[in-house]
Amino acid sequence: MRTLFCAAALSALALTTASFAEMPSGGTAWNITADLTTEIGARPAGSAQEAKARDWAVARLTALGFQKVRIEPFTVTGFVRGAETAELTAPYQHRLHITALGYSGPTSKGGLSGELVYFPSLEALRAAPEGSLRGKIAFIDHAMTRTQDGSAYGPYGNARRQGPGVAAGKGAAGVVIRSIGTAHQRNPHTGAISWPDGMKPIPAGAVSLPDADLIARIARTDKPMSINLVLEGKAQPDMPSGNVIAELPGRDPSLPPVLIACHLDSWDLATGAFDDAAGCGVITAAALRAQEKGQALRTIRVLWAGSEEIGVFGGAAYAKAHRDEPHALAMESDFGADRVWRVQFRFAAANKPLQDRIAAALAQMGIAVGPNRANGGADVGAITAFQKLAVIDLDQDGTRYFDLHHTPDDTLDKIDPSQLEQNVAAWAIVLEIIANEAEAILPAD
Amino acid sequence: MRTLFCAAALSALALTTASFAEMPSGGTAWNITADLTTEIGARPAGSAQEAKARDWAVARLTALGFQKVRIEPFTVTGFVRGAETAELTAPYQHRLHITALGYSGPTSKGGLSGELVYFPSLEALRAAPEGSLRGKIAFIDHAMTRTQDGSAYGPYGNARRQGPGVAAGKGAAGVVIRSIGTAHQRNPHTGAISWPDGMKPIPAGAVSLPDADLIARIARTDKPMSINLVLEGKAQPDMPSGNVIAELPGRDPSLPPVLIACHLDSWDLATGAFDDAAGCGVITAAALRAQEKGQALRTIRVLWAGSEEIGVFGGAAYAKAHRDEPHALAMESDFGADRVWRVQFRFAAANKPLQDRIAAALAQMGIAVGPNRANGGADVGAITAFQKLAVIDLDQDGTRYFDLHHTPDDTLDKIDPSQLEQNVAAWAIVLEIIANEAEAILPAD
Repeated sequence: MRTLFCAAALSALALTTASFAEMPSGGTAWNITADLTTEIGARPAGSAQEAKARDWAVARLTALGFQKVRIEPFTVTGFVRGAETAELTAPYQHRLHITALGYSGPTSKGGLSGELVYFPSLEALRAAPEGSLRGKIAFIDHAMTRTQDGSAYGPYGNARRQGPGVAAGKGAAGVVIRSIGTAHQRNPHTGAISWPDGMKPIPAGAVSLPDADLIARIARTDKPMSINLVLEGKAQPDMPSGNVIAELPGRDPSLPPVLIACHLDSWDLATGAFDDAAGCGVITAAALRAQEKGQALRTIRVLWAGSEEIGVFGGAAYAKAHRDEPHALAMESDFGADRVWRVQFRFAAANKPLQDRIAAALAQMGIAVGPNRANGGADVGAITAFQKLAVIDLDQDGTRYFDLHHTPDDTLDKIDPSQLEQNVAAWAIVLEIIANEAEAILPAD
Repeated sequence: MRTLFCAAALSALALTTASFAEMPSGGTAWNITADLTTEIGARPAGSAQEAKARDWAVARLTALGFQKVRIEPFTVTGFVRGAETAELTAPYQHRLHITALGYSGPTSKGGLSGELVYFPSLEALRAAPEGSLRGKIAFIDHAMTRTQDGSAYGPYGNARRQGPGVAAGKGAAGVVIRSIGTAHQRNPHTGAISWPDGMKPIPAGAVSLPDADLIARIARTDKPMSINLVLEGKAQPDMPSGNVIAELPGRDPSLPPVLIACHLDSWDLATGAFDDAAGCGVITAAALRAQEKGQALRTIRVLWAGSEEIGVFGGAAYAKAHRDEPHALAMESDFGADRVWRVQFRFAAANKPLQDRIAAALAQMGIAVGPNRANGGADVGAITAFQKLAVIDLDQDGTRYFDLHHTPDDTLDKIDPSQLEQNVAAWAIVLEIIANEAEAILPAD
C-alpha cells in the first residue's frame, strides 16, 4: 500500500516540479515577472541592483500607461553578504550548505570554531541556563511543515527572528538554525534577524534541511559536535533605497485612492520571482484590467515598495510621506504566485453590503470567505495602522511557498502562468468593484 | 481545471518531498545507508574519505557475519574540486550556480571570460563550423525529462560526456552545459567527461536548470552573452582506491559464486545516499536474507566497488583480478532506492525454466518481466563481458533518480524506507533461487 501510494505521489511530483518557465503567456503579470527577474535579477535592499530595478520599474510602469510615476527615495541599513561556509568537524566531517541570516555579525579571520550544542526548539534554547553557551555555537532545530495558509511561518519563524538574540543573550559565540523552510533541498533559507536593542550581533546562519537532518541525527547519538563557521556578511548603514509609485487616475480625483502594494526588492540568493516580482506583476496587471470597461471612479495607486525584506523600510517610508493623505483602502500581494483560495476582509459593519458583493463575485471563482482576520500585508501595514484603513486579503495558496521563499530556488521556472493569471483575475474583480465605490469604506473596530 | 489539477498535484508534492529520514526502520539496508552517509559522508574516488569508507565497509561487513572480507587496492586518476563560480556579465548580470564536471580543465588566475555561444543541443554544436568557437565559451542546452526507466540519460547525457570534447575540437576556450538532470532546483549535477584521446581538457561546468532556463531565455533575445568562469578543479593521478569484497560461503565451495555489486564511492557534492550507499545496503541485506532459511548452495560474493563515478575503475580492477575465476551470474544495484518495478534477464534458452521460476516469484510483488535487455550494471560490466556471464537486472523506478543523481541533494532524507525494503525483498527472492541452483546459468548469445 505504502509503495503504491509513493509511486502515485512521485508521478505527481514529476509534474509539479517541471519548469513552467517555457510556457508562453504574454500577459502583463507574466511579462513583469519574467522581465524583472531576467533583466535585473536579484535586487537586495540598498544595492545597486535595487536601484536599477527602480529605474526599470519607472520605465515599465510608464510604458504601461501609468501616470505620476515617481521614485520616493530613502536610506536603509542593508546587509551585504560575504563568503559563507560551514564544516562539521566532529564527530564526523561534513561540508554543510549554509547561508548567513540578515544582520548576522561577521566571523573573524579563519572563521569561528567551537562546540555545536543542539536544541530541538527555540523553547528548549530559552530554557538553557544563563551563560551555559559561553564560547559555544547553538543549533536551533524546529518542526515546521507545509500549510496552505502559511500560518506555520509565524511560530517557527521565531527561531530565525528571535533565536540568534536568545542564544547571544546566553553567551553563545554563534548560532546555526534549521532553515525556516519546507523543501528538502540543499538550499538554505535566509531572512532577517530581530536583534534585541543594544545587542552586538553574533554570526548567525541557516543550514539546509538535509544538513539539519544530519545534525539532528548525530545529536541523537550524544557524540559531541564541533563546527567551523565562516560568515563574512555584515550590516551596512546608509544604503540608498526607495519606493516606486504610480497611478491610474480615477474620474473623481477628490476621492481617496485605492492603494495596492507589492515589494520590488528581493533577497540576494535568487531572482525573487515568487517573492515578490509576481506580486508586482499581479497588482499592476489587475489595476489595468479593472479599467478595461472604462475609467474607474477612484484613482488606483500602485506601490512597488523598496527594502521590504530586511525590515519593511519601504512601507515605513510610504506611511511617513503619505500620512496626511487619505486612502480608500489598502491591499497587497506578497505570498508567491499560486492561486488565490480565500478572501478575508477588515470592513466595518456598515460596509457589509459591499463586502458581500465582492465575496459573491469571488465565490464564482472558487474563492471562499475566510475568518476575516485580514491584515493587508507588510508594506501597507504602517499606513493602515496609522490611518485605520479597511483592507482586503486575497490569500494565496502557500503550500509550496516556504519551499522557495528566501532561497536560491526562487526563480521564474517556479511560476505557473495559469495560477498567476487566476490571481490577476481575482484582483481585477475586487479592484473594479472597490475603485467604482463612492462611499467611504471603514475598517472593523 | 488546470488550477484544480495544480492544487491537487501540489498537495501530493507536499507529501513526496517530505523527509523520509526520520522514519525509523532499523533494517540492515537502511542502517548501512544511514550510517555510511552519516559517519563517512561524501567519499569521492581516490580521496581520504573513500579510504575511510573502505575501512568502514570492512568493519561493517565483518560485523554482519561476512567472511573473507578484504580490500583489493588499485590507483586511479581522480578529480579534485577547487573553487567554482560563474557570473553572466552581459547582457544582464547574474550569479549562476555551477559545478565543474569531472576531468574539467582548470581556469587560470582570474578565471575565464568570454562570449557565451548558445547551442540548443549537442547536435547543433556538432554542426558548428570548425574553428568557429575560438576563444569563446559554448553553452549546450538539452531537453531531458523524467522517465521511469531512466533511458533519457543515455542520449541526453552525451552533452556532458562528449560535449566538452566536441566544443574543444572547434576551438572553444570553455564549455557550460545545462545539468544532466530533471529537478528545477539551483543545484547543478556533476559527472565525468570523456575527453577524446590526446585532447587537452578545457574548463567545463554544468549550471542548474533554473540557470540554464535563464540563459536560454536570454539567448532567444539574440543579445550577445558574456560569462566569467572560475573552475579550479583538476585531475590528479595516482590516487589510492580499492574494492571491498566479502562472501557468504555456500555449501558447495566448488560451485562458482554469485557476484552482486554496488559502488562505495560517491560524488563529492553530497553524501551519496541514492548513488550508491542504498545499493550497497540493498545487496548486502538481501544476501543475508537469502540465507535465512538456511545456508545457500553457492557462495554469494558482494563487491562494493571503488571509483565507479569517474570511470568504473573498480569494475575494471575486479575483472582484471578475477578474470580466471568462474562466476555463476552477476547483478548490481546502482539506480537509487525507489521500488523495483521490472526484471530483465540475459539468460540462455536452456535456462528458461529457471528464468520463469524467478519471474513468477517476482510477479507476486508486482514486478513484471521487461524486454530482457539486461546489462548487469557498470561495476560488473567488465567481468560479465570478459566471461560472458548471465545477468539479471532488477530495474528500479527512476522517475526521480535524475532529480538527485550527482547533485548536492543526494542525501539520506531522500530515501523512502518502505521502497528500500521492497528492493531488499525482491533481491532476496532472486538470490535465494539463484544461489540454490546447481546447474550452470548461461547468457543469451
